[in-house]
Amino acid sequence: MESHSVQILTQIFLMFTSAKLLAVVGERVKIPAVISEIVAGILIGPHLLGLVKAEEWTLALAELGAIVLLFDVGLDQKLTDLMKVGWTVLLVAVVGVVVPFFLGFGLLELTEHSRIEAIFMGAAMVATSVGITARVLQELGVLKTVVATVILGAAVIDDILGMIVLAVVSSLSEGVNYVQIGSVTALAVGFTLFIVLVGRRVMRRVTPRVQRFAAGDPYFALAMVICLGLGVAADKIGIAAIVGAFLAGLVFSEEELTPRLKTNIHALREFLVPFFFVAMGMQMDLAVLARKEILLLAGLVTLLAILGKLVGCGLGAYRLGWRSAIQVGVGMVPRGEVGIIVASIGLGLHTISNEIYAVVIIMVLVTTLIAPPALKLLFVEKKPAGPLPSPPSDLL
Amino acid sequence: MESHSVQILTQIFLMFTSAKLLAVVGERVKIPAVISEIVAGILIGPHLLGLVKAEEWTLALAELGAIVLLFDVGLDQKLTDLMKVGWTVLLVAVVGVVVPFFLGFGLLELTEHSRIEAIFMGAAMVATSVGITARVLQELGVLKTVVATVILGAAVIDDILGMIVLAVVSSLSEGVNYVQIGSVTALAVGFTLFIVLVGRRVMRRVTPRVQRFAAGDPYFALAMVICLGLGVAADKIGIAAIVGAFLAGLVFSEEELTPRLKTNIHALREFLVPFFFVAMGMQMDLAVLARKEILLLAGLVTLLAILGKLVGCGLGAYRLGWRSAIQVGVGMVPRGEVGIIVASIGLGLHTISNEIYAVVIIMVLVTTLIAPPALKLLFVEKKPAGPLPSPPSDLL
Repeated sequence: MESHSVQILTQIFLMFTSAKLLAVVGERVKIPAVISEIVAGILIGPHLLGLVKAEEWTLALAELGAIVLLFDVGLDQKLTDLMKVGWTVLLVAVVGVVVPFFLGFGLLELTEHSRIEAIFMGAAMVATSVGITARVLQELGVLKTVVATVILGAAVIDDILGMIVLAVVSSLSEGVNYVQIGSVTALAVGFTLFIVLVGRRVMRRVTPRVQRFAAGDPYFALAMVICLGLGVAADKIGIAAIVGAFLAGLVFSEEELTPRLKTNIHALREFLVPFFFVAMGMQMDLAVLARKEILLLAGLVTLLAILGKLVGCGLGAYRLGWRSAIQVGVGMVPRGEVGIIVASIGLGLHTISNEIYAVVIIMVLVTTLIAPPALKLLFVEKKPAGPLPSPPSDLL
Repeated sequence: MESHSVQILTQIFLMFTSAKLLAVVGERVKIPAVISEIVAGILIGPHLLGLVKAEEWTLALAELGAIVLLFDVGLDQKLTDLMKVGWTVLLVAVVGVVVPFFLGFGLLELTEHSRIEAIFMGAAMVATSVGITARVLQELGVLKTVVATVILGAAVIDDILGMIVLAVVSSLSEGVNYVQIGSVTALAVGFTLFIVLVGRRVMRRVTPRVQRFAAGDPYFALAMVICLGLGVAADKIGIAAIVGAFLAGLVFSEEELTPRLKTNIHALREFLVPFFFVAMGMQMDLAVLARKEILLLAGLVTLLAILGKLVGCGLGAYRLGWRSAIQVGVGMVPRGEVGIIVASIGLGLHTISNEIYAVVIIMVLVTTLIAPPALKLLFVEKKPAGPLPSPPSDLL
């Protein structure tokens, strides 16, 4: 075979295998797969072992991974549940987005970084990665408690708010322009509402017709066409493609055929998403952390990322009592995929430096790593107090 | 977003959507999806509409598609059934491979093409695409007849023989060398036996251990690691990567967890394989067919491809009576994916010209297109004669 095709296949093999290998090993010591896969990328990437390098096709594969990931995140949202959400949940979500944003933004403004880097940093600190917290809560058997309900509900709103923030920052390739920020925000909110209100109604009509076609899995094909199509549409109007993929996920999130669709998407996710996280790790240059001021910045950003959610979400949940408020705050700390996506878009647009990229990755890794044990500690102390009461309906 | 990432995503969207759209439309008039997807590629490709062009990442995606396709083909083989196969099936398979090979080889030798092009043409005419015939037989409700059993059994052997032929031709990048052909044949046969005999035994031990890991789907991940790994290994020893993927499929074909694995692989296949067929269509330049001698060659090659299987397989099945022998022969006519893979490898190695590539694609399209209606015609006439007898065991 051609030497170049061998090279591509070898890199695909190395990326996938290192990701899965580290994920399995990490699993043993309770490290989330996201982290293991990013670390795999750092390890085999050009800055460390140099086994693989970022090429155009790597980025194409990584982008497909991110699109499948966000489509799946959208697919997991329960919008009808969201409509019934209470004030506490809304408060936790909104305050928990505003506080970290301004902490990240403020820190970079004070340390004399550019305005656009400050905005990207704020944006990277916004979203909560609900998957990691949800798994820990499930392990502890406390998924039905008030605290868990508030965390999971708020994290869903955070995902949507995070997407709007992402839409706005991804349009800032030409520098900061407040008129543009306003118009893109309006556009993103409008686009979201349109998709959610009109898109789901259209799907309800289309679904029964699609089922009539016999061969293959036409519903899955249609879902992927819409996922890629909304990705392209988002891209064309100047916002990140994954926002479109996320909205496509929302459209399909509560259809009759969703369970079968999820099986297919999970298979795609298992195969494609590792390429995204590994590619993200590959772009991280650990060497920049050798510079004292960058390491200091990484430490400060991470600290503010933790405090931001702890204080912001804790304030939002003050009605639950301070102990539960802290549990909610800690549960919202992990940043996971959205933070990384914001950073990678900034890097792609050349609006953030390699240093800031590395700082964000460190922040994501640390917040994602410390939340699960902290959460366990907080819940285990409470556990002997007997079965927890089911959530009072006025709070939710 | 970056203009280049928009461009990649737009092309991914166009490739996938055109493939699925034409497949759905083709479905209505009973055209197999393989054909619709290749036609989609010809349409949107650089030689016609020019909406997409073959770039490095397109080929990377197409290669992943081919690997998943061949892994799935391997997964579908029933090796234990194969061991019990009768002489008729073996005869149909072997004569049905030898006759078309020498017809294709001979024609190109006679028309003064290079020796290596002649070998590639022979190789492209070897394999039977069982999927298309199997679906027609199923539609007709004759899957349990002697003829169907012979066709399906022989097609499996053809797949394996086709892979060995492919292994040999894909190693011929430096021109024809008979010593090399001998050694690669031995290597390919040895590799196949090793994988099938040792690989399956190893998997039987590994499978129960893998199941113990909780997160994600470790068995699916392991299967993909082995699939990509054997692909790379095959590549390194100088034979086509997809031969490795096919062998990996064989290793996993009769495990306890195979049904769940198949669900995952089918999802990957639905999403990734269209990129392969579309990319294959994109590389076809219809304009070369405007030259009379190329069109004539395409016609002759197609005719020989049909006659080769009809005569070769018919001879092999002579014991079943001439009517059944013709049915077997017609059932073995469609070439499908393996023919295309041989041609694409030849094109990639620059050992076959654009003209010969176009001729192979035409041959594959026509053989795949005419077999289903011909088969229906042959079976429908017979049908009113009442229920068909179940196959006598000495034949199979």
